[in-house]
Amino acid sequence: MKIVMAQINPVIGDIGYNVDKMLKLVGKALEKKAHLIVFPELAVIGYPARDLLLRPEIVNRIENALRENILPASSHIGILLGAPVKDPLSERLYNSSLLFYDGSVVGRQDKMLLPNYDVFDESRYFQPAEECRPFIFQGRKLGVTICEDIWNDEDYWNHCRYETDPVKELVARGAEFIINLSASPYHFGKIKQRTDMLSAIARKHQRCVIYVNQVGGNDELIFDGSSLAFDSGGRLIRQCKSFQEDFVILDTELSCGTDLTGSITEDIGYVYNALILGIKDYMFKTGFRKAVIGLSGGIDSSVTAALAVSAIGKENVLGIAMPSRYSSQESIIDARNLARNLGIEIREIPIERVFSSYLDELNKSCDLSQDLAEENLQARIRGNILMFISNREEYLVLSTGNKSEMAVGYSTLYGDMAGGLAVLADVPKTMVYELARHVNCDQEIIPHRILIKPPSAELKPNQVDEDSLPKYEVLDKILKAYIEENRTAAEITAQGYDHSLVQEIIRRLERAEFKRHQSPPGLRVTTKAFGTGRRFPIAWRP
Amino acid sequence: MKIVMAQINPVIGDIGYNVDKMLKLVGKALEKKAHLIVFPELAVIGYPARDLLLRPEIVNRIENALRENILPASSHIGILLGAPVKDPLSERLYNSSLLFYDGSVVGRQDKMLLPNYDVFDESRYFQPAEECRPFIFQGRKLGVTICEDIWNDEDYWNHCRYETDPVKELVARGAEFIINLSASPYHFGKIKQRTDMLSAIARKHQRCVIYVNQVGGNDELIFDGSSLAFDSGGRLIRQCKSFQEDFVILDTELSCGTDLTGSITEDIGYVYNALILGIKDYMFKTGFRKAVIGLSGGIDSSVTAALAVSAIGKENVLGIAMPSRYSSQESIIDARNLARNLGIEIREIPIERVFSSYLDELNKSCDLSQDLAEENLQARIRGNILMFISNREEYLVLSTGNKSEMAVGYSTLYGDMAGGLAVLADVPKTMVYELARHVNCDQEIIPHRILIKPPSAELKPNQVDEDSLPKYEVLDKILKAYIEENRTAAEITAQGYDHSLVQEIIRRLERAEFKRHQSPPGLRVTTKAFGTGRRFPIAWRP
Repeated sequence: MKIVMAQINPVIGDIGYNVDKMLKLVGKALEKKAHLIVFPELAVIGYPARDLLLRPEIVNRIENALRENILPASSHIGILLGAPVKDPLSERLYNSSLLFYDGSVVGRQDKMLLPNYDVFDESRYFQPAEECRPFIFQGRKLGVTICEDIWNDEDYWNHCRYETDPVKELVARGAEFIINLSASPYHFGKIKQRTDMLSAIARKHQRCVIYVNQVGGNDELIFDGSSLAFDSGGRLIRQCKSFQEDFVILDTELSCGTDLTGSITEDIGYVYNALILGIKDYMFKTGFRKAVIGLSGGIDSSVTAALAVSAIGKENVLGIAMPSRYSSQESIIDARNLARNLGIEIREIPIERVFSSYLDELNKSCDLSQDLAEENLQARIRGNILMFISNREEYLVLSTGNKSEMAVGYSTLYGDMAGGLAVLADVPKTMVYELARHVNCDQEIIPHRILIKPPSAELKPNQVDEDSLPKYEVLDKILKAYIEENRTAAEITAQGYDHSLVQEIIRRLERAEFKRHQSPPGLRVTTKAFGTGRRFPIAWRP
Repeated sequence: MKIVMAQINPVIGDIGYNVDKMLKLVGKALEKKAHLIVFPELAVIGYPARDLLLRPEIVNRIENALRENILPASSHIGILLGAPVKDPLSERLYNSSLLFYDGSVVGRQDKMLLPNYDVFDESRYFQPAEECRPFIFQGRKLGVTICEDIWNDEDYWNHCRYETDPVKELVARGAEFIINLSASPYHFGKIKQRTDMLSAIARKHQRCVIYVNQVGGNDELIFDGSSLAFDSGGRLIRQCKSFQEDFVILDTELSCGTDLTGSITEDIGYVYNALILGIKDYMFKTGFRKAVIGLSGGIDSSVTAALAVSAIGKENVLGIAMPSRYSSQESIIDARNLARNLGIEIREIPIERVFSSYLDELNKSCDLSQDLAEENLQARIRGNILMFISNREEYLVLSTGNKSEMAVGYSTLYGDMAGGLAVLADVPKTMVYELARHVNCDQEIIPHRILIKPPSAELKPNQVDEDSLPKYEVLDKILKAYIEENRTAAEITAQGYDHSLVQEIIRRLERAEFKRHQSPPGLRVTTKAFGTGRRFPIAWRP
């Protein structure tokens, strides 16, 4: 059977756009004489559509679009796609796969396993299917699963989250192929994990596995695509591109796979490409063409600017250097050199006069100075200038703070945190350096001095980050253990860290929740990002 | 049986504080010779504890506190309380009620119905119970339910959310009383709704119903308390205070109820008291003693200041008037008079010089002026000044924007939206006026002119809100239909509104999501607030 893996990038909510995109690919698949074309989970509305799914008009519009556009296109080809389906009797919503063929719906299988952890809220919207049965299509039995349905193999995982394994059920009911429609977001290491797991499942059940994933950035989530097909021996037959749309055809009878055992690796370039896609799609889907970034001459803003140039082109990126009385001459030169190397416009707007005018008003009856209030004020003046340029000239402000800072609150609310998208919000500082070395791998784009000088916020004389924070190598390891691995303070200490340091970092992390609550969406590239996947109260006490 | 309704205000996460509070009330109940004391849902950790529930150390600390402190206190009294309980076999977490008596746990009933809509995420944390059975206590059968468990009566509701009704099951199994442990957040109208429903359930099953609710503000949610007891005829026996802790004893044999049919009403004073509690608890639980508010001489900041004074006392509230070149003389006088009437300190910090210094830098190469960028800049300068005072002098900034503005994006990110808590974020403009009249009911606190002048942001010459927005009476009705009642544009138009106006408002609402994403937590007082109960994507297209 000739099957097309149609790895598309839907725009959430834009049913017309998504259906048009699908119809074009159906046409292309017909030209290639494919029997079946497979689209990702919820492809018709995009993932995650969140509370849009609760709006009555959306579900009606989807029903109409499927009936009027997809159904007639299925005369000579099977179209398998993901859509939310409201059961006419119970009025309950399902996360479904629908198979259209010859002008009618010949199969519907609802998702059985609904993820409701981390960034996922599917129990908020959907009912789970109670059972799964293969579709009969052209005399073959297709076992169709949706995303999470394939992530519960009792042999692959030490701990199963759910009691049922839809794949096992489908194979028991005679499924000849396993097809999975996914919207599976990226984190560093996910592609290797997914490939290993799918290969093991194909091998175990001796079934061809065809996995079609959504691609694209949707707010904080980045879907990498990287769709895969395995033969019944678990060998890789086909692989779609990562971080872009793709259209790949395979013939289940003819394809001959490659054994991948132990050969898959992911390097920092994947994170780089993920972030590019996250920026590009956030801008495209919100309607921005141009981005502005405050360039401090530090590593975070340099990497952010390099990413922005890769995402939208140098002609659409504007850098603003905003030196203060505490900025070093080196920082300004480094920012200029970075802009020159990237080929972007840079404007210099010193903040000294504005800063002084605030201090004239605010220090009148007060002999305090150089306190935290003044440090934050400088960052907020810069935030205001960027937002002014955004408002006047229609630039999106990209904020540049990294995950390590966001974790411990080493950032200024409405200051360096201001912006529409926080590009590095889930990138620990040590990984920011890895990204910088990746940017510089062929030639020096980010001036070398930026990579070697001690990080500094330059908000008071001779300030460096390590005055207030432990070394980033240590901080990042403790943060990873706490945030990503959910370790206790005692467990982290037992890994060889100073107990009071561990406690101090956790305390700072907890106290900074009020800042993160007001931060722009941040692109997720680790297993646990701040944002919708990590929900903490603000007003609480440990 | 003598039962104490112990309506407490726990601090989320502070197990020691919560257990101490409970032990004091257990002592008091023993003095009163009560047989049983009942605490709210999850009282030991507070509600909603959110992802704290996923932290392994928290659940262990709760187990220890219950074993070491609650168990020994139960020698002569039954202690019924809500706690998260990890099943030792499955390692799964339950939202449980535990009955301690005579030094052991004599009953455990897990919550059956887990709400996972609006602000609730219980499926993220808990497994549901599969059945419920009455506890035997002192020879009587107690039917214990937890919050949502009692909200699914098939006769009371037109539409049941769940298939099972735990109350019905417990009565069928011989429960003589129905007890409900709750953490049920307030919205305007909720007390009447809850009282009506519980009375109907008592009457239907001919059982005494004892309902013990949490009280207190936890970030955006305000729990009103208002615990209730009904006799088996549905007549009210006891009622705890709203919006404060309470300790009420009742004797199920002796109590004689009052028929409430049709007599319960809620006026705007409830919303006022809810907001006071929300402010007070947010400050207490985050450790702030003092609050600062930008006083524009408008209605929103006036009502916010009056609320703050009621919450924390006039000596802890600071008003800042920040006039600009566009501020009217009337506004400054109104702000001063408000401060005088409230008895709060007011400082005047004109923004003209700072504003000019920004414009000198930013209008250099540009002949634009008085555009949206300049309007927003003024609001952001004011935000910076408030944050400066917050950082230097440890005031919490209370932001003053109302729900109508937040809905259509008539607000400045990092400007008037800046702050730690958005007091009126769920109060529509028309309800802000009702609150103002409530404040003034005995004497003129808010200067009369503030109530009658046309609302204006005063960010450009002769600006009034109605230049950019429809009349608030119309806007608020359309917003309520769309947000709270989930109506479609067509349905709202059919209620008699102009179709293009309805569409324009919805479009503005959708486009302002990026602002709301970065807003401070806002106190919830309607059935659908912006915040955790309403989750929309930013990058999407209708």
